[in-house]
Amino acid sequence: MSTQEPEFEPASSENFVNLVRNKIPDEETIYDLAELFKVFGDSTRTKILSCLEVKDLYVGEIAEILNMSISAVSHQLRVLRNAKLVRGTKEGKEVKYALDDNHVMMIIECGLSHLKEDHNHDEHAD
Amino acid sequence: MSTQEPEFEPASSENFVNLVRNKIPDEETIYDLAELFKVFGDSTRTKILSCLEVKDLYVGEIAEILNMSISAVSHQLRVLRNAKLVRGTKEGKEVKYALDDNHVMMIIECGLSHLKEDHNHDEHAD
Repeated sequence: MSTQEPEFEPASSENFVNLVRNKIPDEETIYDLAELFKVFGDSTRTKILSCLEVKDLYVGEIAEILNMSISAVSHQLRVLRNAKLVRGTKEGKEVKYALDDNHVMMIIECGLSHLKEDHNHDEHAD
Repeated sequence: MSTQEPEFEPASSENFVNLVRNKIPDEETIYDLAELFKVFGDSTRTKILSCLEVKDLYVGEIAEILNMSISAVSHQLRVLRNAKLVRGTKEGKEVKYALDDNHVMMIIECGLSHLKEDHNHDEHAD
């Protein structure tokens, strides 16, 4: 054992490090997760998702609600569909859009709750 | 009433548009929400958050687990703290890091669940 003062708590047991490593998702999943959150990280897309949280909508309806062009909304809907955050269901000649599943709504709602919280506890011991 | 074929369901009643507009978050909240998700949208930060989901850790421990330099981890911890996703608690000369609240864990877990789901239902009527 070294007599040198450790710079931080001696975490360095192989077991401890491996324990945490084995519990976190693998590299590919972490990458996919970050890519998923990048899709949420755009205010136009977040706005579209918020509209679809209220109700399922056609592209023209979203454009009207958000005062955007249909082509701009369509572009973002394509990104959201590729990321599996929204899905389209054909209704005659039109496609009606909906949030893909409850996870999408939960992610948005958790984000909103987090923003609303009081965060004055940083750097204070519990 | 016009005899013209509408291009999409006639959403255009002012009431309908205003109903959805009134239910979605305001511009500033939408912006903050997108900024919050941008912070999740980086695989190094997502990795650090995943480690902190397992247990509270010192910066040196995170660096060892992820095979990263302490300065690189510190940089990302600063970003995560500014976004209120992690908080630091002083323990002597060291700071121990933890997820800021349960919302952070829930956002990650919802993201992971979403990735694991089967998404073969796009463009099919329910």
